Amino acid sequence: MTRRNLGPAGEAVFDRLTIIGAGLIGSSIARAARKVGAIKAISIADRDEDVIARARALSLGDSYFLSAREAAAGADIVIFCAPVGANAELAAEVAPALKPGAVVSDVGSVKGAVVAAVGPYLPEGVHFVPAHPVAGTEESGPEAGFANLFVNRWCILTPPEGGNAGATERVAAFWTAIGANVEVMTPEHHDLVLAITSHVPHLIAYNIVGTAADMEAVTRSEVIKFSAGGFRDFTRIAASDPTMWRDVFLNNKDAVLEMLGRFTEDLTALQRMIRRGDGDGLFDLFTRTRAIRRGIVEVGQETKAPDFGRQSANDADDAAR
Amino acid sequence: MTRRNLGPAGEAVFDRLTIIGAGLIGSSIARAARKVGAIKAISIADRDEDVIARARALSLGDSYFLSAREAAAGADIVIFCAPVGANAELAAEVAPALKPGAVVSDVGSVKGAVVAAVGPYLPEGVHFVPAHPVAGTEESGPEAGFANLFVNRWCILTPPEGGNAGATERVAAFWTAIGANVEVMTPEHHDLVLAITSHVPHLIAYNIVGTAADMEAVTRSEVIKFSAGGFRDFTRIAASDPTMWRDVFLNNKDAVLEMLGRFTEDLTALQRMIRRGDGDGLFDLFTRTRAIRRGIVEVGQETKAPDFGRQSANDADDAAR
Repeated sequence: MTRRNLGPAGEAVFDRLTIIGAGLIGSSIARAARKVGAIKAISIADRDEDVIARARALSLGDSYFLSAREAAAGADIVIFCAPVGANAELAAEVAPALKPGAVVSDVGSVKGAVVAAVGPYLPEGVHFVPAHPVAGTEESGPEAGFANLFVNRWCILTPPEGGNAGATERVAAFWTAIGANVEVMTPEHHDLVLAITSHVPHLIAYNIVGTAADMEAVTRSEVIKFSAGGFRDFTRIAASDPTMWRDVFLNNKDAVLEMLGRFTEDLTALQRMIRRGDGDGLFDLFTRTRAIRRGIVEVGQETKAPDFGRQSANDADDAAR
Repeated sequence: MTRRNLGPAGEAVFDRLTIIGAGLIGSSIARAARKVGAIKAISIADRDEDVIARARALSLGDSYFLSAREAAAGADIVIFCAPVGANAELAAEVAPALKPGAVVSDVGSVKGAVVAAVGPYLPEGVHFVPAHPVAGTEESGPEAGFANLFVNRWCILTPPEGGNAGATERVAAFWTAIGANVEVMTPEHHDLVLAITSHVPHLIAYNIVGTAADMEAVTRSEVIKFSAGGFRDFTRIAASDPTMWRDVFLNNKDAVLEMLGRFTEDLTALQRMIRRGDGDGLFDLFTRTRAIRRGIVEVGQETKAPDFGRQSANDADDAAR
């Protein structure tokens, strides 16, 4: 199922939403849901007192909790917005408080492991609809979120076979209401697609930033000074939340290792072209890859502005000084 | 030598500048030099008739040539703005036309091979000052350039040992006048630094985009749709000019293969951590790499805006519709 966003629905999709984890994604969901009126009341839970205080200061919700269980009591939908590795524990904690007919969802970047970890804890009559909004920035915490984060981004749902179709429909309607396009697929296929579009890119970004940091012949100050040649793009990705990404790699091991194997094979072939001076081979690959970029810009998943529009962001920085 | 930019100089550094190659970099130099008055007259040469017509339409210079030799006659400084692999041929072509005391420079991303290729062609009394402005976007052609491209970016000079110090000073003054900070180093060190900050990042970006394009289990349309998870950043770099980058890899083979070797070793270690479920090892690396990003933002080589300021660039796209 693909559901292209046709604009805001205009009426509440759920009465009461509980968000567990008030970071970049959780706080953005709260802001977006409030903005478009997709929810009547929002409860925010975070086990970190400081985060809850900041969420309250930002008026992200209608009520605030340190206990996930208390926050989940009476909710129509509970969304886990914590690192993937925390989901099993969260499921165990909230399960006794969930009302019959409640929907449980998440925002994890891995789906197979989440389905396996969360499913067994949920009582009969509670509907599990795993979700993954493919959106974010390198920032973390409740202040980093914003209401438009999901606009024109894709949210992938991976409902279990034989699950409640009505629950899936409502979760899809919720994401559509806050601006996302919705796609449904199996957890296994999700994990394969995201391994190549997200997990391996993050891994190699972390890796090259690590390699550069460990150089002796080139100083760290040189790496930083001359980063505009391409390296700085990788550092943005490699500045993403460490806990979230640790959990992604631990929980999508098979697909990541499979894709990493392909990446390494291809890199070895490229290395050989360089060693042998095969200019035609290099030119062919470098020409082929341009087309993918065009496709991404054409479908609106990327700004048309060169250099990501950094120039205008820089001008904004300057203006702010 | 490091020369931090202290603002525009206000008077012409050279009387007549000839730019050979009116692409992104060449056209940006012309625009910047004109804007700040660093040059009295600008000649533009390009062997492509269509490019010369477009350069003329953009009023990039004062005179236009298809012949590099004709354009170079009488110039005080000639800057090769062509792919690295074209420099030897350009040097041979312009050499007979160069006036005594003229300065020859370039903008190539590789310096050792350029010094070796260009030097032998230049007559006695002509001063060669190789340069590399570490700036650019993924776009190509005369329309892609802009006057502020070099503002607060670094330009690396690699003058030959025993070369004319006055010529190096004037080239430094020129780059400073158009907004850049200047650093002087040996060609060998330049090639090592840029291998890790630019060449290997480009290579692995090209590589992963190629790997993704060749998947069977994941369709190209899925790769494009779900690219916001990280992949799209790599596609920007992998959309850079194929000829330029082919020449970079052919001409900086040793340093690139050395850095690629380190990258691959580190990636193998990371792969092993994932296979063994070493969450602490992953977390340590992912935490360490955040600091590098902070350094880049602090020294002004990157916008402070999250996601490169894409959000504001997107808003600009929307406004333009």
